[in-house]
Amino acid sequence: MRATRQDLRDWVHVQWVPDPIVRKHYMSLRAPTLQDPTGDVDRLIAELIRITPTREIIPENIKAPLRVLQRISHTLRETSFRLTAVVAQTDSHYELIDVRKGHDESDCLGLAIDVGTTTLSLYLVNITAGEILNRLVIENPQTIHGEDILTRIHFCQGPAGLETMQKLALEGINRGIGRLADSCGVAPHDIYAVSMAGNPTMTHLVLGLNPYHLCREPYVPVVSRPPLFRAKEIGVNAHPDAPVYVFPGLSNYFGGDVVAGILASGMHKSKDISLLVDVGTNAEIVLGNRDWLVVCAGAAGPALESGGAKAGMRATASAIEKIRLDRETLEPSFEVIGNRPPEGICGSGLIELVAELFLSKAIDPKGRFADHLDVPRIRTADGVKGFAVVLAEKGEGPKDIIVDELDIGNLLRAKGAMYTALALVTERLGVAFSDLETFFVAGSFGEHVDPGSAITIGMLPDIPLERFRVLGNSAGIGACLMLVSYGLREEVESIRRKAAYIQLTTDNEFMNRLNAALFIPHTNKELFPTVFHTR
Amino acid sequence: MRATRQDLRDWVHVQWVPDPIVRKHYMSLRAPTLQDPTGDVDRLIAELIRITPTREIIPENIKAPLRVLQRISHTLRETSFRLTAVVAQTDSHYELIDVRKGHDESDCLGLAIDVGTTTLSLYLVNITAGEILNRLVIENPQTIHGEDILTRIHFCQGPAGLETMQKLALEGINRGIGRLADSCGVAPHDIYAVSMAGNPTMTHLVLGLNPYHLCREPYVPVVSRPPLFRAKEIGVNAHPDAPVYVFPGLSNYFGGDVVAGILASGMHKSKDISLLVDVGTNAEIVLGNRDWLVVCAGAAGPALESGGAKAGMRATASAIEKIRLDRETLEPSFEVIGNRPPEGICGSGLIELVAELFLSKAIDPKGRFADHLDVPRIRTADGVKGFAVVLAEKGEGPKDIIVDELDIGNLLRAKGAMYTALALVTERLGVAFSDLETFFVAGSFGEHVDPGSAITIGMLPDIPLERFRVLGNSAGIGACLMLVSYGLREEVESIRRKAAYIQLTTDNEFMNRLNAALFIPHTNKELFPTVFHTR
Repeated sequence: MRATRQDLRDWVHVQWVPDPIVRKHYMSLRAPTLQDPTGDVDRLIAELIRITPTREIIPENIKAPLRVLQRISHTLRETSFRLTAVVAQTDSHYELIDVRKGHDESDCLGLAIDVGTTTLSLYLVNITAGEILNRLVIENPQTIHGEDILTRIHFCQGPAGLETMQKLALEGINRGIGRLADSCGVAPHDIYAVSMAGNPTMTHLVLGLNPYHLCREPYVPVVSRPPLFRAKEIGVNAHPDAPVYVFPGLSNYFGGDVVAGILASGMHKSKDISLLVDVGTNAEIVLGNRDWLVVCAGAAGPALESGGAKAGMRATASAIEKIRLDRETLEPSFEVIGNRPPEGICGSGLIELVAELFLSKAIDPKGRFADHLDVPRIRTADGVKGFAVVLAEKGEGPKDIIVDELDIGNLLRAKGAMYTALALVTERLGVAFSDLETFFVAGSFGEHVDPGSAITIGMLPDIPLERFRVLGNSAGIGACLMLVSYGLREEVESIRRKAAYIQLTTDNEFMNRLNAALFIPHTNKELFPTVFHTR
Repeated sequence: MRATRQDLRDWVHVQWVPDPIVRKHYMSLRAPTLQDPTGDVDRLIAELIRITPTREIIPENIKAPLRVLQRISHTLRETSFRLTAVVAQTDSHYELIDVRKGHDESDCLGLAIDVGTTTLSLYLVNITAGEILNRLVIENPQTIHGEDILTRIHFCQGPAGLETMQKLALEGINRGIGRLADSCGVAPHDIYAVSMAGNPTMTHLVLGLNPYHLCREPYVPVVSRPPLFRAKEIGVNAHPDAPVYVFPGLSNYFGGDVVAGILASGMHKSKDISLLVDVGTNAEIVLGNRDWLVVCAGAAGPALESGGAKAGMRATASAIEKIRLDRETLEPSFEVIGNRPPEGICGSGLIELVAELFLSKAIDPKGRFADHLDVPRIRTADGVKGFAVVLAEKGEGPKDIIVDELDIGNLLRAKGAMYTALALVTERLGVAFSDLETFFVAGSFGEHVDPGSAITIGMLPDIPLERFRVLGNSAGIGACLMLVSYGLREEVESIRRKAAYIQLTTDNEFMNRLNAALFIPHTNKELFPTVFHTR
């Protein structure tokens, strides 16, 4: 794995004040004399106070683990009283979590984690520079005991179930940390801060908290707003005293991942109304501005993440993510993630394919292939027509990649559900799509999707393309932001105060309106003028 | 060992505001409902804030170890949402260190420790009631590697020396905790706070901090003002998350024990000048009032603690502590600590004996037995005269207890040194003994000494007896106070700011003036009018 540095500012368009959760302070202390025999630790703390711009730092506010105190005198005298103090902030005090010899100019490292049901996304961050040094997505090892949340909650009630679930999550995280650290030539022990965002169940499982009551009336989490932990308390393989910020959730259903996503979008600070849709294993929709925020569950996500297709796969290496068809011959040209031979097609690729097939009039609004076409790539197997994106016999890849009418049907149900949810939530709040300042598309899926194609198939509303902003993994980015600007935890609290959540799935209207949205793009052409103008 | 409850107010005459370092809060929470599905921990914290009178408690200020969070949901549901929260305060925040089922009305326990070079004094305290439940003095197990501080500091520089020293101190402390807990029918795990006072070297050794630089120019401690620790960090056998307050020291020489002693005396709050002399393995003198405090090293203590006599022993069970002589026959009547057969004589007993011998004119001002006396208890062995307090042949005890002229000479050198130190420090500060509002006598020795006898031999100045106040183990009492009124840490800081220290032992005048103080009570009779009036 190669390290690929990225400035956090390239990802998010919100402003933040640099306020690192952990700082390294280089100090050259006066050596003690008979006239000034101040204790080593007291001397270090006095200097820390002197060089720190904020006045909040007073001796009473500075703590240090005994383990650090036990090393200070030796470290100071090894290096002629020059050292680098590693100081973490908490809500209430500062903590001297490490001392390093001399002037340590290495990056001050933090780790951000999006703990997803299906995948764990880890980001190694240079906290001071606000730079992502490298990132990594791995499967959540808990999936061996259940793909979905309910199965896992059930598993936790068996013998050692909770311990097993926590251990699996931590094994995955710690394996990821090892790989990220290796790729950047650093040690896990050099990671001085961790921030973590996940849905309520995943947050419970990583912390070893029993999620039993999350899925039973009255749906109560053990904790919504966890205090700051230390890495060693949880078992995360970072510096043992690294502070661990866990994003607080909104309810038993909407977790810290949603909060972190809102934070990354900045929609909670704008006077205009924006919408954020986050498509993961579950999908969430957030609508609002600096005055109010409404959160609701969107359509089920898996169909969009991997397209719900037989040849579908997640947006990882070897997945076809972009595709164009020649309008006449239907010959495809595509891009594969990691420039490898194609092994499948991810959600965004599938959306583009269906959009291209529709614009080429190869499929009708119901997603059925036209009868009159005589294109070799359109094949029939077991009485079902499909389109061969990749044909192994033609040397285009190691195996055929075929998307058939059943796959397209799955996608249309997913996109229909999403569009219906988007339409319902905006209508219920009296907001027209055209009123939206920004439409954020987030989730691992959202990182790759082409909004134009998503409009074409009727998944996203037909608004000007420049209003769409692809956020990528907004929960992961929000978690990165917390490391570089710990003052943002106040914004997090204001997001929690502002947010209300509504339930759409109990709504009869949903099913009634879904039918119209199952067509490409929709039965009501007026909703998608651009698409019909293009086709 | 029996538990002997004592109100802290019986020990100290200072006022304090009850402000326990740890409190137990009983709460009966509303069970969650669909309308109020607040998380269990969030619910508990909200209630804690509601019932706590101070406004400082806000959610951001309340931390909890993950281990406690992992148990809360189960505990709540076991007891219909009734529980007792154990909350510790720190300088900067509150910490929920335990939750107990239902309404736990047991004492909220703390442990105070005076870590002495020779002995460890432990106090089991009911923090809420301000009551000492039981106390215990045991030998500091470190003495097997050296009686004095310098030997121990040297030992620490050998392989695993520091680890060994820390382990020995902790073994002693933890053995003491076990015995104290047993005597009160509680578990060490129920001890929710610890406070500790010791001289700088002992403080270093208990914390596993290398004292190497304490005894080498420029005499620098690792830390003078330690942060608050947790019991598990140090290895003290209390509740693992119990806060551990370690009294800060004044310099490389004057430690937290002196600070705790001043705190217990209250002299730092009085407008009148008082003097505190603390006789332990080392002796310290403190002079001052609410405006200024001067600390200096008094005479070496061991000679006073055990009297420096062949039959001397510390003031523990079987030691003669009080003694009176028939002025004609010199027949003794005495009290033995613990009402056991006498095995030796402690410092206070020796002082009384010498005073009685002097007042009976059995010895002269040089401590020599008068030639003319024909008393069977005055015996000569190896050409040295001595007085037999206990004669085994007469069935007065298991063995002879004889105090001879060499023993008396040792005592006179010790008392002379102490008096000279007291005289020099008061003179240097321009304070007459007669100006002293209170003369505090502290130390394990000070708990038993009779000020009248100490005046008679010229150890303490000849001021009205009612001005003396026997403080006992002032460091231990100060440590107890910190548990029941944690706000006193601000007084501790003010004591540290006010205190200056002066050195008397480099003073040539000391040796010049010591000679006059080696006599009983002194060569200058005008200094001890009461004594000569009595004799």
